[in-house]
Amino acid sequence: MSFSRRSGNKTYIWGKNMSEKFVIGIDYGTLSARAVICRTEDGKIMAEHVCPYAHGVMSSALPDGTPLPPEWALEHPADYEEALVVSVRGALEKAQIPAQDVIGMAVDFTAGTILPLDKNGTPLCFDPQYASRPHAWMKLWKHHAAQAEADELSALCERFEPELLVCYGGRISAESMFPKLLQILHEDPAIYHAADRFIEACDYVTQMLTGSDARSYSMATYKALYREGVGYPDFLTLAAPEFADIARTKLRGSICPLGAVAGYLTAGMAQRLGLCPGIPVASAQLDGHAGLPALGIYGDNAAMMTLGTSSGIYLCTKELHAVKGACGIGWSATLPGMYGYASGQPGFGDLLAWFVSHSVPADVCDAARSHGISVHEELTQRAARLAPGETGLLALDWWNGNKSVLQDMELGGLMLGMTLETQPHEIYRALLESLAFGLRRIIQSHEDAGIPIRKLHVGGGIAYKNPLLMQIICDVTQKPMVCCKPVSVPAVGSCMFAATAAGSAAGGYDHLEDAIRHMHCLSDMRYTPNEANREIYDRLYSEYLRLHDYFGRGENNVMRHLKALAREQKGAPHD
Amino acid sequence: MSFSRRSGNKTYIWGKNMSEKFVIGIDYGTLSARAVICRTEDGKIMAEHVCPYAHGVMSSALPDGTPLPPEWALEHPADYEEALVVSVRGALEKAQIPAQDVIGMAVDFTAGTILPLDKNGTPLCFDPQYASRPHAWMKLWKHHAAQAEADELSALCERFEPELLVCYGGRISAESMFPKLLQILHEDPAIYHAADRFIEACDYVTQMLTGSDARSYSMATYKALYREGVGYPDFLTLAAPEFADIARTKLRGSICPLGAVAGYLTAGMAQRLGLCPGIPVASAQLDGHAGLPALGIYGDNAAMMTLGTSSGIYLCTKELHAVKGACGIGWSATLPGMYGYASGQPGFGDLLAWFVSHSVPADVCDAARSHGISVHEELTQRAARLAPGETGLLALDWWNGNKSVLQDMELGGLMLGMTLETQPHEIYRALLESLAFGLRRIIQSHEDAGIPIRKLHVGGGIAYKNPLLMQIICDVTQKPMVCCKPVSVPAVGSCMFAATAAGSAAGGYDHLEDAIRHMHCLSDMRYTPNEANREIYDRLYSEYLRLHDYFGRGENNVMRHLKALAREQKGAPHD
Repeated sequence: MSFSRRSGNKTYIWGKNMSEKFVIGIDYGTLSARAVICRTEDGKIMAEHVCPYAHGVMSSALPDGTPLPPEWALEHPADYEEALVVSVRGALEKAQIPAQDVIGMAVDFTAGTILPLDKNGTPLCFDPQYASRPHAWMKLWKHHAAQAEADELSALCERFEPELLVCYGGRISAESMFPKLLQILHEDPAIYHAADRFIEACDYVTQMLTGSDARSYSMATYKALYREGVGYPDFLTLAAPEFADIARTKLRGSICPLGAVAGYLTAGMAQRLGLCPGIPVASAQLDGHAGLPALGIYGDNAAMMTLGTSSGIYLCTKELHAVKGACGIGWSATLPGMYGYASGQPGFGDLLAWFVSHSVPADVCDAARSHGISVHEELTQRAARLAPGETGLLALDWWNGNKSVLQDMELGGLMLGMTLETQPHEIYRALLESLAFGLRRIIQSHEDAGIPIRKLHVGGGIAYKNPLLMQIICDVTQKPMVCCKPVSVPAVGSCMFAATAAGSAAGGYDHLEDAIRHMHCLSDMRYTPNEANREIYDRLYSEYLRLHDYFGRGENNVMRHLKALAREQKGAPHD
Repeated sequence: MSFSRRSGNKTYIWGKNMSEKFVIGIDYGTLSARAVICRTEDGKIMAEHVCPYAHGVMSSALPDGTPLPPEWALEHPADYEEALVVSVRGALEKAQIPAQDVIGMAVDFTAGTILPLDKNGTPLCFDPQYASRPHAWMKLWKHHAAQAEADELSALCERFEPELLVCYGGRISAESMFPKLLQILHEDPAIYHAADRFIEACDYVTQMLTGSDARSYSMATYKALYREGVGYPDFLTLAAPEFADIARTKLRGSICPLGAVAGYLTAGMAQRLGLCPGIPVASAQLDGHAGLPALGIYGDNAAMMTLGTSSGIYLCTKELHAVKGACGIGWSATLPGMYGYASGQPGFGDLLAWFVSHSVPADVCDAARSHGISVHEELTQRAARLAPGETGLLALDWWNGNKSVLQDMELGGLMLGMTLETQPHEIYRALLESLAFGLRRIIQSHEDAGIPIRKLHVGGGIAYKNPLLMQIICDVTQKPMVCCKPVSVPAVGSCMFAATAAGSAAGGYDHLEDAIRHMHCLSDMRYTPNEANREIYDRLYSEYLRLHDYFGRGENNVMRHLKALAREQKGAPHD
């Protein structure tokens, strides 16, 4: 692949060692950060390097031993700095490329990971007077201790701005910005007031790289109720008067649009990373959304599915469509200039992992060991010998609730049709099928809103590891699928944002669309719907839908009743 | 305990070595026969001896290697003769009692186990010219290859004698007499015609013991559509003209009422068994029903529950009550002079065994091993630490279908409410609770028909082995329960029938009720309903009922659809 594609001039080809240019994308995950270096010409991955966070997730105590309440999850800002330097230097060393050929950088991040800074831009938790105060630390996205605050804000939003709530999956997630801020105000107001600003971790890293006060527009949109041209919603002041004018107080900073330059690498940081100062750093993106460009999607009626512990479905349209039950809808926050839609299943690979660790007998595990394969592979091989419908089983994929379509985390799993002959690999297959039915239901909610989806681009470890699951999803959805190579898809997407931030003059691209066209190179396995299985899966899906609506839409609330009873009875005297 | 109880005279006590009398009950099961010797005075079990059947269940081939089709299950009549001699002699040797003090015998049997005899009363399969013909052999109760014939007869009965069908659980079971006869007529009519008579295995053993042609009235009633004063139904001739006048042809013999003497021990058999000739042999009883007297039940608003691989609920009333969904209703066929009702769950212990062998991970099995207990015990101990409702789970106990109340073997199991935190012992507890809910639903169908049940007498291995399950059943049903010692309950019941056949003049009893009053001595553990758990279980049971009716009464036939699809897709090409 060559630059000539873009220019239309096929005679001039970028040659190796001539003027290759490179970009760095850094994907900040829950436990580590991964830097990937891509060649701008063709997206070739030159090197990658992972650096785990030294403190990991802190859920029981602060570094000084101060204990944490249940549901807390914090991280250490110093780990993010260390991971930045180690991962970038590690990748550069492996790639063996000259620093001056790196023309841009971008980061993508877990979303709703926030921290308070002092007026020097230093995390409050670094100040010894606050080091023992849990609220001075960085709250990880999956810090779930602000549920009461989330419920309070959801109720207010429902009442005063119901149309806004539609863009957030019908509720304000405890993982987002304002519930976490409100929790600080409720539980340690002194920290709230001592903080000069609160920012997303991605903005903290952007500040570290560039010295800029830029805030990621995408994060603000998807995680902080920010709306382009509107700002933050007024009802927030009903929860706390402190939230009045928050865009100019605790959340001040320039909102930096997706695809724009957030700042330029400082001399100090350039030296630490081994890069040239002044290269552009793109506005940070949410890790899930960062995958779309990497998988070659630019609004062509294709959806991205990421299949990991949970699943995500992401897509973009030029016009706004009222998708019922999407978890997130945002303008220009997934791809610039388009409406983005995010949905997904809160449990995906997690369901299969639960099954393997809680419900598989020793004989199956022994067989896997003797075949030299994983238990997942053993079960998959056995399940692959079954025809669709042969198990006699049907499941609802709600082990971790339902966050799209039904938006009800109180729902639980269901499996029916078991007989005394039912085998573990039959249950495993029924789980695979239920995951596919869940995906189809989400796709259907987009199609019902007038967004035709013609193709699925699939990323995530499971996509590569389980071809049976991929074929089942393909047959159930009846959509052609392209599965991508098992690489860090978000980091590659960040490279495309970095190349766009650099611009064509520097050897990058002026438009994200061009970067995608040239740099997208992750496609691998292709799946075509098996027409013969269509009718069987349609029958099973209609049974799935009937149970989905019966248990999910209030006709029989048994799952909610059971969860309420279980909470009530937790620790009650037994027989 | 002494005979004085019965006579009202407390001065005369039967003393040891004075004139103790004994009876022998033999329980013929699926894999072995067990002889039990009881003292008539007080029911004390003096000895028991088990003899397994040498050929076991023949489901793949005849003894000469002739292969058998699927769903077949045959046994060898010679095994029944050997088991008779070995078990009785073995028990006598252990008991060390004089032959002349044994005053009566009785057998109880698996029901719907039938065989063809020649005109000398010899099994047709013993004739070399028929030894390779599968239909010449003894069809075990669980021979399921006559399902098509059962369906045909059910349809005829539904059309011509619907009121009769109500007494058979709404359908004629493939395990009963006529479907098996019809299968012979369809598949090997020469055998049908070569047979002089077809009899139940219990009648074959009675003939061996006594030379009599007596047929067990209870077997004829519960397994061959026989009605006292009516005989066999007329519609049978629509299925096969050969069934006309069958009471005088292939099913001829004297119908011997329950509690009566079927015949007297022949000299030849007395010698082989080491007993005195001429002692009475009682009319044979179905093994499940034989337990009622053993557990001390004689129509006092108590029900017997037998908890094994499947469960049974049996009770008797003076007046007929139209119990909806009982599997069997018969006059004088469970206890003499009363209406008997039989119901139950086709899967009980089988469900728990399925779970343990198919769904329990190695770490739980390892923990059980290190504690020196079974996996069932390990799971039970963990489950016992949970309060009712704490699992958040609910199951429908239909892994093996539903034969009472809904009478639909196409139903399958259901489990709902699972989360990623759900543990194996929580699922195990949900299964225990579902079994208790299933029992409560059956009890409810009796109470709805006007039969109050004040107490449950529980027998079967599980009753003794799993106190948690017993307490859950007690709390769910809110009935006091007495669990009996882990002995062969049916054989002890047969001993009571034997003592009644012997009569008081010989040292037995003139009425079964007296035998029960004196000889019943198996009660052991008592359970009292825990009032504190009542409300929680009532809530869970109402959720169970809602699912029971939704999936069981046609509102959502997904289970039936899935079974039909599974049959359709069995062996179809896979992806």
